[in-house]
Amino acid sequence: MKEPFLHPHRFFDPDPSIRRIAVELHASVEKLPILSPHGHVDARILAENVPFPDPTELIIIPDHYIFRMLYSQGIPLERLGVPTVDGSPVEQDHRKIWQLFAESYHFFAGTPTAAWLAYELSELFGIDEPLGPTNGLAVYDRIAERLRTKEFLPRELFARFGIEVLATTDGPADSLEPHRRLRERPLSGRVIPTFRPDPVVDLMRPSWRRELGALSKASGMEIDSYRSYIRAIEERRAYFKEMGAVATDQGVESPAAKRLSQGEAEGIFARALRGEATAEDTARFTANMLMEMARMSAEDGLVMQIHPGSLRNHNSRLFQRFGLDKGADIPIATEYTRSLRELLNEYGNDPRFSLVVFTLDETTYSRELAPLAGHYPAMKLGASWWFHDSLQGMTRFREQATETAGFYNTVGFTDDTRAFPSIPARHDLSRRLDANFLAGLVARHVIGMEEALTLARALAYDLAKRAYRL
Amino acid sequence: MKEPFLHPHRFFDPDPSIRRIAVELHASVEKLPILSPHGHVDARILAENVPFPDPTELIIIPDHYIFRMLYSQGIPLERLGVPTVDGSPVEQDHRKIWQLFAESYHFFAGTPTAAWLAYELSELFGIDEPLGPTNGLAVYDRIAERLRTKEFLPRELFARFGIEVLATTDGPADSLEPHRRLRERPLSGRVIPTFRPDPVVDLMRPSWRRELGALSKASGMEIDSYRSYIRAIEERRAYFKEMGAVATDQGVESPAAKRLSQGEAEGIFARALRGEATAEDTARFTANMLMEMARMSAEDGLVMQIHPGSLRNHNSRLFQRFGLDKGADIPIATEYTRSLRELLNEYGNDPRFSLVVFTLDETTYSRELAPLAGHYPAMKLGASWWFHDSLQGMTRFREQATETAGFYNTVGFTDDTRAFPSIPARHDLSRRLDANFLAGLVARHVIGMEEALTLARALAYDLAKRAYRL
Amino acid sequence: MKEPFLHPHRFFDPDPSIRRIAVELHASVEKLPILSPHGHVDARILAENVPFPDPTELIIIPDHYIFRMLYSQGIPLERLGVPTVDGSPVEQDHRKIWQLFAESYHFFAGTPTAAWLAYELSELFGIDEPLGPTNGLAVYDRIAERLRTKEFLPRELFARFGIEVLATTDGPADSLEPHRRLRERPLSGRVIPTFRPDPVVDLMRPSWRRELGALSKASGMEIDSYRSYIRAIEERRAYFKEMGAVATDQGVESPAAKRLSQGEAEGIFARALRGEATAEDTARFTANMLMEMARMSAEDGLVMQIHPGSLRNHNSRLFQRFGLDKGADIPIATEYTRSLRELLNEYGNDPRFSLVVFTLDETTYSRELAPLAGHYPAMKLGASWWFHDSLQGMTRFREQATETAGFYNTVGFTDDTRAFPSIPARHDLSRRLDANFLAGLVARHVIGMEEALTLARALAYDLAKRAYRL
Repeated sequence: MKEPFLHPHRFFDPDPSIRRIAVELHASVEKLPILSPHGHVDARILAENVPFPDPTELIIIPDHYIFRMLYSQGIPLERLGVPTVDGSPVEQDHRKIWQLFAESYHFFAGTPTAAWLAYELSELFGIDEPLGPTNGLAVYDRIAERLRTKEFLPRELFARFGIEVLATTDGPADSLEPHRRLRERPLSGRVIPTFRPDPVVDLMRPSWRRELGALSKASGMEIDSYRSYIRAIEERRAYFKEMGAVATDQGVESPAAKRLSQGEAEGIFARALRGEATAEDTARFTANMLMEMARMSAEDGLVMQIHPGSLRNHNSRLFQRFGLDKGADIPIATEYTRSLRELLNEYGNDPRFSLVVFTLDETTYSRELAPLAGHYPAMKLGASWWFHDSLQGMTRFREQATETAGFYNTVGFTDDTRAFPSIPARHDLSRRLDANFLAGLVARHVIGMEEALTLARALAYDLAKRAYRL
Repeated sequence: MKEPFLHPHRFFDPDPSIRRIAVELHASVEKLPILSPHGHVDARILAENVPFPDPTELIIIPDHYIFRMLYSQGIPLERLGVPTVDGSPVEQDHRKIWQLFAESYHFFAGTPTAAWLAYELSELFGIDEPLGPTNGLAVYDRIAERLRTKEFLPRELFARFGIEVLATTDGPADSLEPHRRLRERPLSGRVIPTFRPDPVVDLMRPSWRRELGALSKASGMEIDSYRSYIRAIEERRAYFKEMGAVATDQGVESPAAKRLSQGEAEGIFARALRGEATAEDTARFTANMLMEMARMSAEDGLVMQIHPGSLRNHNSRLFQRFGLDKGADIPIATEYTRSLRELLNEYGNDPRFSLVVFTLDETTYSRELAPLAGHYPAMKLGASWWFHDSLQGMTRFREQATETAGFYNTVGFTDDTRAFPSIPARHDLSRRLDANFLAGLVARHVIGMEEALTLARALAYDLAKRAYRL
Repeated sequence: MKEPFLHPHRFFDPDPSIRRIAVELHASVEKLPILSPHGHVDARILAENVPFPDPTELIIIPDHYIFRMLYSQGIPLERLGVPTVDGSPVEQDHRKIWQLFAESYHFFAGTPTAAWLAYELSELFGIDEPLGPTNGLAVYDRIAERLRTKEFLPRELFARFGIEVLATTDGPADSLEPHRRLRERPLSGRVIPTFRPDPVVDLMRPSWRRELGALSKASGMEIDSYRSYIRAIEERRAYFKEMGAVATDQGVESPAAKRLSQGEAEGIFARALRGEATAEDTARFTANMLMEMARMSAEDGLVMQIHPGSLRNHNSRLFQRFGLDKGADIPIATEYTRSLRELLNEYGNDPRFSLVVFTLDETTYSRELAPLAGHYPAMKLGASWWFHDSLQGMTRFREQATETAGFYNTVGFTDDTRAFPSIPARHDLSRRLDANFLAGLVARHVIGMEEALTLARALAYDLAKRAYRL
């Protein structure tokens, strides 16, 4: 008997008693609406609602999970059609790129990328066999054909996916124009922005000065001092909130939070305006801005998210040629206990404040994050993230965080995706893994079945709804 | 068919071949006497033998595992009756507190606290259903009623629990008066003190000067120099030993051990006496005292225990209002290889010396602790501790330490509890988890069944007996 | 029914569906030839082909896995016949040593040493019961008898083990004379050297000056400057390559790689020649040599291996009395993301360059190493190493590295052994564990059976062949 390509019991423990329970738990949450409170989908896709161009443009070119793996196996990004910064030519034949991808499909064995792709191929495009050298172009054509149909327009897919809320991630100066258009022509669910101030917080970015100008323009305020800078940010947060935002987000190398005196902050800001900020200035300024963002969140009620611990653009040559987000961001060891102490001492006991912390350093789950979230009322743990948004990664998160933080100090799943069509694939994976984890607890008589049913729903839906105040 | 509340096969792997073996192994150790060589039970409870006041006072108010979880979910400690430092009023209605706890019981799903509570409710109080909003007060009344009976007097419970040895943890100036009384009126098992010098070692504690006075008084020695300080400590160790102590214990932020010259030690001590010790002085003094305590242990034969890696009182506001041990102690990354080098070079090869090391940083199990314990004759690994005294935590400890250190470089289970009635619950959990771990090895043909039976007994009883020289 | 001593299904998950698949996958790779691209077997054993002396000399005295465990349980190394540096007498009665080992066999329960020993006893010597106090001497005699037969001559065993390639590890000045003799009288497989320059790279070694002299002699070049030193190393690499080497190896405390200017390098080298190099000089020189070795590898095509993170000779007394490699090398936390950045920026995108990185810090699998190997084309992950070359260790490696790096950015198994007769035992263990890991993926429908069969072969054979260019 041939295995179905997308097995109905995929990702569940093969032990019959666990599997039986996992199937039941999963069935109870499978059809729940999707809450996606953090991710990187471009709202314009939904506002414009034009057909997706072709399979390569849809699935390969924007997905750093995919092309970094191919790159690691010696395939130049040029051959994958990844655009260069200077516009120097790259492969334009998308069928050829797809075929190369199909021939390289085995490199993904055992990775979440393979799991997501299988779901997309099967559930979205009705293709019920793995991609490979022999069927590559046939699959391409079949997907391409579907993408031209009305059913595959972004807004149709949004409805079909059952998305209740989709949060985007937006720069501080962003006009949120697509969000405005989506308000005028509502979808079956909400699309909301998220305030991410990184471009004006990270003083070392070459674009900082320019971004500051954009912030000034967007806020309608002159920014000539730290004081006016802070006011402009507060102004933008208010605008985002008005546009439906429920949260902010910050990507920082270190989560160290430490308030500067007004004088120090003004001093560093002035140096940055003159292009003289040092690396140390930058680190101290970022630490201060974590404190400021926490203060603002306590005041305006936007949930604060921190995504720390990635050393961005590790590969300088690749960065110079292809720019940001090309799979060359590498995690570093991250410290939370001392780093967040000042912030949590100041705001962690404040019932108005809500902080969701993510990590790329799994050693911190049991050592630092679960103990912190298991104590401070304001702090919750974000889902296992990025490299750890995977079968084993999710399992480790639950195994290492639950016993100290419990389930109720976590916030459910966040797909964090750039790839719109992969959203249901990612939630499918997470709901299955959570069902399986709970089933293991039931089978070992750690929790009861009724409790597990409540928790399965909480992890798939309720916790995200509550944590992000959706 | 309804699941029993306390399933006889709880915590065992559901795979039938593992479960069958686990059941057999567990049955072979289930009734062994309890050795509790490290914990925080107050000996006065047993010396005075008065009835426990009420369920809330017994189970909630002293247990930071419980109230920190409730606090993390937004319930103020005042509402839980946790006493304030300044005596400002907190909830006094213990039935109301219990009901609040019962309504919050689901927050503990999947935590060891839930497992311990289930055992206590069922085995101790005969309550065979989980606590919840509807049965909260009925359960309260039932427990309260039992607590008034003779069978629930502390000495009766001590016998019923089958405790062979119970070690308390005591300050260096402690009179050990309850221990003296217990000698006069022996229990069914031994209650022995443990020498923990932290109050006079940590120079930064506001109470250091006062504790030094108490030490002076207790030892009958004037302490005006480092030299006399050391003699006073030696004197107190001798007294503790005479009173039955087999071990010492030190809670330190870092396990770094480094001897100071006599001159340096005297210099720091003199500064501390003048209230001028710096943070660096404190760290160096503590590092020196680890060396001194090791020397004394080599000389007097008391087993040395180190519990490092907790950043105490992370939440300053909570600390100011409620004091120590309120669930706000958060682990930090801990280094052992370099930190313990001087100590192990000096004493690690000495057959008179025995060192038991604990950790809150699980990354050190396989990287540092197992290799050290798998080499130095004097060093053994303490059980998985605190946040890691849990189902997954114990499993990770065995999985990550055993292959390098073997079983015989570990010391069995230490419950480390403050909550006297939870002692058997904790040993039940640990015996089950060890039985299950061994069963997994048998089922995978890594060890044989006879070997597993010997090891199950070793982990439950023999290793603690030998390591602590009981 | 009595369990067989060496169970045919050993190390496989007891779940019937996983076990069935594991058995099938294992059967498909069980008989593949052995590739051993990194290890510490002495080539003279095979060149000279004299009978192994006796069981104690073969199995106990050279194996630090064994005697460190016995030492940790209080057995002096002298009683185990481990030779002293100064030649002071140690136990010479090898039967007595073996009996002591047999009586201590239970200390190894659950360790990979026990698994390897069981394989050797059973498969190699036909002994089908565990070693213990009662059969110790009988087993000794049986092994001793076999060792005197022709079938147990090293070259016979080499053929029987099915070794296709065996790499040794050799100092930079090594004449490779045994390798030369093996060329003249070929074995059933290749024995190739590996260039390990540590003795002339680590400026702090007391023997550095002497080793430099040997390097000068071996290369036929006067070494009076950094420049000539580098040329001598290049010359020796060329010689090793000519003698069949495919790789180099470096054991370093830290993997930090950072090029020095020519002037700085000459300055440090001159200080080292005068015996004035500092610890900081040493660290900077080693970091520079990692860059230089990478450059040379890009040029001459030898695969570069790095084994970092061991603090050697932790126990000074033991080191003074017994010398190197006595089980007292203890891992330390190791950082790769920042440490390897300069090296990977310079050479990581170079198709001529191939780098295999090992670790003793398992926290880096998912946090740093898999993301790096999952991006840089030149970098691959070495197998789980040393303390982690074990059942759980291999499983953790696969679980933590695969989802980000995939299987194809790893290089298969390296046994890294000093103990020639344990080679097949180690490959047996690794092939079983990989089969079991893949079986778990198949049973959870993460990969298909055909894919698993391809991967089982890749992990056992193909990946090593490709990565080491064999």
